[in-house]
Amino acid sequence: MPPRSHSPQAPDFIEAVDAAIAQFLDSRVEIAERIGAMPLLEQARFATAGGKRLRAAFCWWGYVAAAPVADAAALTRAAASLELLQASLLVHDDIIDNSDTRRGAPSAHRAFQARLGGDRAESYGIASAILLGDVLFDWSIAMLESSGLPSEALDRARGIVAEMRSEVLLGQYLDVAAGFDATDATTLEAQQEQAATVLEYKTARYTVARPVQLGATLAGGSPELIAMLGRYGSLVGQAFQLRDDILGVFGDPELIGKPAGDDLREGKRTTLVLQALGLSNEADRTALRAILGTPTDDAAVDRARRIITDSGALEIVEDQIEALLYRATVELDSVALPPEAKTALTRLAKRAATRER
Amino acid sequence: MPPRSHSPQAPDFIEAVDAAIAQFLDSRVEIAERIGAMPLLEQARFATAGGKRLRAAFCWWGYVAAAPVADAAALTRAAASLELLQASLLVHDDIIDNSDTRRGAPSAHRAFQARLGGDRAESYGIASAILLGDVLFDWSIAMLESSGLPSEALDRARGIVAEMRSEVLLGQYLDVAAGFDATDATTLEAQQEQAATVLEYKTARYTVARPVQLGATLAGGSPELIAMLGRYGSLVGQAFQLRDDILGVFGDPELIGKPAGDDLREGKRTTLVLQALGLSNEADRTALRAILGTPTDDAAVDRARRIITDSGALEIVEDQIEALLYRATVELDSVALPPEAKTALTRLAKRAATRER
Repeated sequence: MPPRSHSPQAPDFIEAVDAAIAQFLDSRVEIAERIGAMPLLEQARFATAGGKRLRAAFCWWGYVAAAPVADAAALTRAAASLELLQASLLVHDDIIDNSDTRRGAPSAHRAFQARLGGDRAESYGIASAILLGDVLFDWSIAMLESSGLPSEALDRARGIVAEMRSEVLLGQYLDVAAGFDATDATTLEAQQEQAATVLEYKTARYTVARPVQLGATLAGGSPELIAMLGRYGSLVGQAFQLRDDILGVFGDPELIGKPAGDDLREGKRTTLVLQALGLSNEADRTALRAILGTPTDDAAVDRARRIITDSGALEIVEDQIEALLYRATVELDSVALPPEAKTALTRLAKRAATRER
Repeated sequence: MPPRSHSPQAPDFIEAVDAAIAQFLDSRVEIAERIGAMPLLEQARFATAGGKRLRAAFCWWGYVAAAPVADAAALTRAAASLELLQASLLVHDDIIDNSDTRRGAPSAHRAFQARLGGDRAESYGIASAILLGDVLFDWSIAMLESSGLPSEALDRARGIVAEMRSEVLLGQYLDVAAGFDATDATTLEAQQEQAATVLEYKTARYTVARPVQLGATLAGGSPELIAMLGRYGSLVGQAFQLRDDILGVFGDPELIGKPAGDDLREGKRTTLVLQALGLSNEADRTALRAILGTPTDDAAVDRARRIITDSGALEIVEDQIEALLYRATVELDSVALPPEAKTALTRLAKRAATRER
């Protein structure tokens, strides 16, 4: 079903993406039944449900920036394929991070585990979730290929999608390795540089720049437009990640679907945390380091929040988000765009940077 | 480098495939360095090294069955892309099976673990290997797409490759679920039916039928040829898996690169084991059940081998392999083929069913 409204915030765009995914998964019932793998398909429905469908929206509006939409249903399917990839990565992320929940529900490996029960349930859960992530990765490609967009459009787009997949996986590896101190970065400066690399590849390009460029590429947009959207996307994506860093420490558990101070518990060296470590006095730095990556109670979370705020890091990161958003709008002004695309990309950027509806 | 000889057993075909993979991975150095993920690339080289390159050989000879090879280097790259997919699946398999070794060397997650050392090394190893499997999966697609084969050939082939990927992942899920008794199959008969499904999708189609059909499809082969190669491939693939079942119980650890009786230790319900359970007397059946999936010493392995041999299951499975091979050669006779393709596909079938050089 094509979206009935062109506003990226419109519930009917999200509904259209959800419907396209449901329809695609319906098309996999035959093979899953034939091979006796229906539990994998059932879990795929949960793993792909919910979410703000930001990547699909950026893809859609990247297309509109380049050309009028000729086949809304096909473009919706192509855009929605990014959400299958995202679901794949989240399923594997949750195994990697040993996360019990995702969007307030059990993570995939925990859901499989609960399905079996008993002694060996944890191994079954992890094994099944590894395969679920693999199959969602595979299906994201199948969904794009079978979207119904013209083959010339797909020919143009395959390279950028492949690039995006490599970038996010390699960026994710760097993020994991940094979390385990498995890199050569020993100084705080080197760690900040790494955090910037993770931010660029794992988040900025993957969440915004590549989806919006994919849309424009599918539409046959000019190299100038695609380059501008890359710069816009990198800026907005960085703002998105910085907001994520703030929410990971200060966010309301009800709203973000994760425990309070989850990033602290996981010991994530986010830009926010690294800034705070760099700006704090010796005592606060030692205290914050001690909290990172250890089981945290509410008092420790409160203490870490206070250190991060007192250091000035929170204010600096908020200012960075503002500056990134401003620069993104300057980029949008640098190329002639259809007014509706410009309006939508401006609003999407704000939404990504604030996470408000 | 194109293969200089057309014999599938020729070392220079294997060398050409190895060289194509090495060259492809070289082309990823730039992005891996840029994103700080070189350890992933280094491990990718180990994970893709070795192996008999059977899938690549079936793809090559499927092509030759349909048309003369126009661009040997491009076809070698396309065929070799199947080996990246295989490496991806093995890396994830080894996590799922908690295997310490692969082809006599540490499995990927153990290699990453050893690289870091210390308390958290096991989690780092698993996280990194999940991402390594993902990136190899991704690169198998990139390697096919960038093989240099004409775009019409790739357009024809994408569907069959996607089908193959889905089949092997769903078949792998069924195999895992059966191993954890996480299916509805309670009777021995139902378990045998499941084992047959796993055999067909996880092995027969993935190892032989789809690779050989992929080759013929890339070459623009007729529907009759592609259908015949599907039947041939399913038969040869079944023989391949039955040989694997035998080697998993009776194989020489030196030759197969896995501990003696590895399938028994893992409790795999292979066709061979299920046959033995069905044919044994009550006492032997109880003894064999008790050995399956528990830590086994050499005496237990010997006992299980004797039960399986005494039950007649070993002989039956050997006969099944013979019959499958015979039927595969009958299939090859049913369609006119270039003599060199017929010879090679006959020899490859024997090689798959015997695992001898």
